Amino acid sequence: MTLPSQDFRNEVSTQTRATFLEFANHFADSSRNIIDDICRAGLSTTTKADKSLVTQADIQIEQAFRDEIHRVFPEHGVIGEEFGIVKPEAPFRWIIDPIDGTEEFVNGVPTFGSIIGLHYKAAPLIGVMDHPALNIRLSGAWQQGVAYNNHSLQRYEDSPKSSLDLRIGISKKKNFSRHKDENAVFDRIVTTFPNIRVLDTCYSFTQATLGALDVVVEYNLRIWDLCAAQVFIPEVGGEFTIVSERDSGKGMPYVCAVFGKPWAVERVLPLLENT
Amino acid sequence: MTLPSQDFRNEVSTQTRATFLEFANHFADSSRNIIDDICRAGLSTTTKADKSLVTQADIQIEQAFRDEIHRVFPEHGVIGEEFGIVKPEAPFRWIIDPIDGTEEFVNGVPTFGSIIGLHYKAAPLIGVMDHPALNIRLSGAWQQGVAYNNHSLQRYEDSPKSSLDLRIGISKKKNFSRHKDENAVFDRIVTTFPNIRVLDTCYSFTQATLGALDVVVEYNLRIWDLCAAQVFIPEVGGEFTIVSERDSGKGMPYVCAVFGKPWAVERVLPLLENT
Repeated sequence: MTLPSQDFRNEVSTQTRATFLEFANHFADSSRNIIDDICRAGLSTTTKADKSLVTQADIQIEQAFRDEIHRVFPEHGVIGEEFGIVKPEAPFRWIIDPIDGTEEFVNGVPTFGSIIGLHYKAAPLIGVMDHPALNIRLSGAWQQGVAYNNHSLQRYEDSPKSSLDLRIGISKKKNFSRHKDENAVFDRIVTTFPNIRVLDTCYSFTQATLGALDVVVEYNLRIWDLCAAQVFIPEVGGEFTIVSERDSGKGMPYVCAVFGKPWAVERVLPLLENT
Repeated sequence: MTLPSQDFRNEVSTQTRATFLEFANHFADSSRNIIDDICRAGLSTTTKADKSLVTQADIQIEQAFRDEIHRVFPEHGVIGEEFGIVKPEAPFRWIIDPIDGTEEFVNGVPTFGSIIGLHYKAAPLIGVMDHPALNIRLSGAWQQGVAYNNHSLQRYEDSPKSSLDLRIGISKKKNFSRHKDENAVFDRIVTTFPNIRVLDTCYSFTQATLGALDVVVEYNLRIWDLCAAQVFIPEVGGEFTIVSERDSGKGMPYVCAVFGKPWAVERVLPLLENT
């Protein structure tokens, strides 16, 4: 998952990348329809969805995605939370998280999102992150920039802030015990940079892409959470650093990553030593 | 600001409360128009507003509010961030925070909100909290319930969660140094209840009112931040506890408050002893 020593992404033509991105955007449209149906069935502005409805949506969207990949790109691999990996040896591997932020979704908080990514020979090539309830979509491809609802995003401005003002998004504290007790890492970060936000959905990655957060620190996520941000951040002039990967005991490894504006990433990284 | 020993709110008739609430809702509509104009002038989905534009919006909205109060209820007092207190001795005192979450607003994050409150003899009577960019409005009056975009909100269900799962919203760590060094309070809370969210806008109060957060802990805010939540939370069956008020050195005191579902408030309060 860390970038391979050799980068083969220029083997994939601009036109082919555009075709893959169009496919991913088209699927995100379908996924919105499925989520809309679920919302109409059980989630309203004033009541909560049943957790099982959400699980059902997750399964339904991931299955539809796998069916589409099988139909359109039968030689490609797929990685997803619900059904594991198929064709792990394929150079092109699609990655999906149908509903990131399940807890927020169930509670009617609109920041949840759908995430789609495509890796080529282990390097991030295509990403789509869609927030149906906020009507916000980011989509991008390697060396082709990022669009925010069809508007091209500008690259970050270089305007470093003080430690007190630096806007940092961080995993909820719970995640820092997922692999081993790393609460001290959380404590160190939020003491050094106290202007923190904790969103617990991929909406923080959207904020980082837009430059509204200067940097994001995520502990013990999976590749399906991060695959789109991994494409977007370098495209807007940022740095995406995978700090460590560890055995999750459940198939795909846990990933710890720091990403955002280069000056902010450089300020945070030293706090993660010994991780 | 703590509830007075005697509660005089039933001196205000149901009809009068409804009239005040209609006034506040009507003003929130005007406030949305001003914010829309500002957004069109300088804030788009892909660029950031100038901080001075926001300050300008704050001043413009608060001035318009004061003018309206002076015209419609000339005997009422007003408290606001930009222009201080007028008629502090008046039994009815309106309170306004034109744009709560200025930092989010400037960065294009849609969770900022406008807050309006009315106190009667120091007790909360009317509240409106409006999120223009999310198209979400909460409005409520003492003993008349809370509406979410015109739908009546139900009262909380009583379903306590484990400490690991309890959904807690908390001030960013920066606020815990505003009055004195109380970082230990933050650390204690997020260690005991690690399923934290840090939003740094009144949108967390909206989530608490809707029951999407179980409890909110806010340190060193002002009454204009809290005045609407103070009305809403008891109306949906919750508890709103002011833990302490301190000299801010800038006129209105700093307020520390814990509010939300009664079982969750009771779990958090013991962690704040010695505050």
